[in-house]
Amino acid sequence: MRELVVIGVGAGDPEQVTMQAVAALNRVDVFFVLDKGEVKQELVDLREEILRRYATDKDYRVVVGRDPERDRTTTAYVEAVDDWRRRRADVCAELIAANLGEDQVGAFLVWGDPSLYDSTLAILDDILARGELAFEVEVIPGISSVSTLAARHRVGLNQVGRPIQITTGRRLAKAWPEDVDDVVVMLDAQTAFTSYADEEVDIYWGAYLGTPDELLISGPLRDVAPEIEKVRAEARDRKGWIMDTYLLRRTPRPKM
Amino acid sequence: MRELVVIGVGAGDPEQVTMQAVAALNRVDVFFVLDKGEVKQELVDLREEILRRYATDKDYRVVVGRDPERDRTTTAYVEAVDDWRRRRADVCAELIAANLGEDQVGAFLVWGDPSLYDSTLAILDDILARGELAFEVEVIPGISSVSTLAARHRVGLNQVGRPIQITTGRRLAKAWPEDVDDVVVMLDAQTAFTSYADEEVDIYWGAYLGTPDELLISGPLRDVAPEIEKVRAEARDRKGWIMDTYLLRRTPRPKM
Repeated sequence: MRELVVIGVGAGDPEQVTMQAVAALNRVDVFFVLDKGEVKQELVDLREEILRRYATDKDYRVVVGRDPERDRTTTAYVEAVDDWRRRRADVCAELIAANLGEDQVGAFLVWGDPSLYDSTLAILDDILARGELAFEVEVIPGISSVSTLAARHRVGLNQVGRPIQITTGRRLAKAWPEDVDDVVVMLDAQTAFTSYADEEVDIYWGAYLGTPDELLISGPLRDVAPEIEKVRAEARDRKGWIMDTYLLRRTPRPKM
Repeated sequence: MRELVVIGVGAGDPEQVTMQAVAALNRVDVFFVLDKGEVKQELVDLREEILRRYATDKDYRVVVGRDPERDRTTTAYVEAVDDWRRRRADVCAELIAANLGEDQVGAFLVWGDPSLYDSTLAILDDILARGELAFEVEVIPGISSVSTLAARHRVGLNQVGRPIQITTGRRLAKAWPEDVDDVVVMLDAQTAFTSYADEEVDIYWGAYLGTPDELLISGPLRDVAPEIEKVRAEARDRKGWIMDTYLLRRTPRPKM
């Protein structure tokens, strides 16, 4: 039976790879990569560095497919993402059928942790549901950008006995989540935090976490929001892309 | 300057340790341990196994302090935990002052990830705020039980564009969080999921994640809740303790 391993490789620092991930990397015959056709050459280099460092026990191939474009013009976000996933599943199914022999092990490397805002598992489920290809799936958890953010700022994500919400910039821009003081935001292309700059909120912001270009800014949101906007815009212009995440912490903590 | 490293060592499988954690383990002169005086001998053994496997480059000492008791009789949960933290900070401050030389590196090993429902960082902040001891703090993120749970069940934590709430059993027993379909529950001593067994909810449950005793059950909550309760109670009786976590996923997904 074919096997596919989905390997979380950490937020960007090759040293965040786990022993378990290294063991998995060394069982792989074929690494599958969807080429985003974008300018994130650093991420390609980082992925290659991880393979060079850790996948040392056996020969492997890297097979690159073309990542289909997502429709970013529509306001129907969920439908657009669902459609994109289906087309990515088409591409992946073809890659697997054409390149992975029976009894071989294929792998997808995922930045951060495969369970957080990543579509690889949904794509594999989709392929399996079609019934044309059979394979087993194993998942190796990775250090997420969220854990990395908290570690670099040396803060916990939660307050005592309190919840944490992990959400998107799109949702935060609409409303602060109910009954939650600690909100982690991923996938925020629009600096949604600026909507809360008049409130009693601290921010812990980070970009390119775990990489040599890492940026960290924290403080009362009203004081540091303009700086984050400026630094973020400059970095995105300079590098052509940005990956950032942040924790917003409402203070003072209300009584339970 | 003294340095304290807070090292996330994963959910229970020594193979979840990262390269970064291994490098940190090998810089440590003194490992600080708070002995809970409980029956979790497996966790003590696991911690020793991690040191034996990975802390191989230099000599180190392990210094054990007595973890103060938490007042579990009060209903004032936050106050009881705050008080407990202060007394743990007293113990840790004494341990550090008595055992860590200037220019030495001390460490606390944390199960899972130090940013999720762990008090070590708050204790160190508390000690620093007292102004009697000075040290630098570094945090090494770890694979959380939440990431491990998702990986073992091969599911993502979020649905497309949707938030995730991480919360406690105590809070879930009171109410399902607003506007959230995916809820991860930690620290649930009372099987709070049973309150939702009549609703359209799937559960992905795991105990002793990453260890040889790992237990996994998933399915529609109404079908598997009794089984989880039974398996959980038996395991707790057999081992004398339980650590479990779960994802509740409300289905079908409402439109955004």
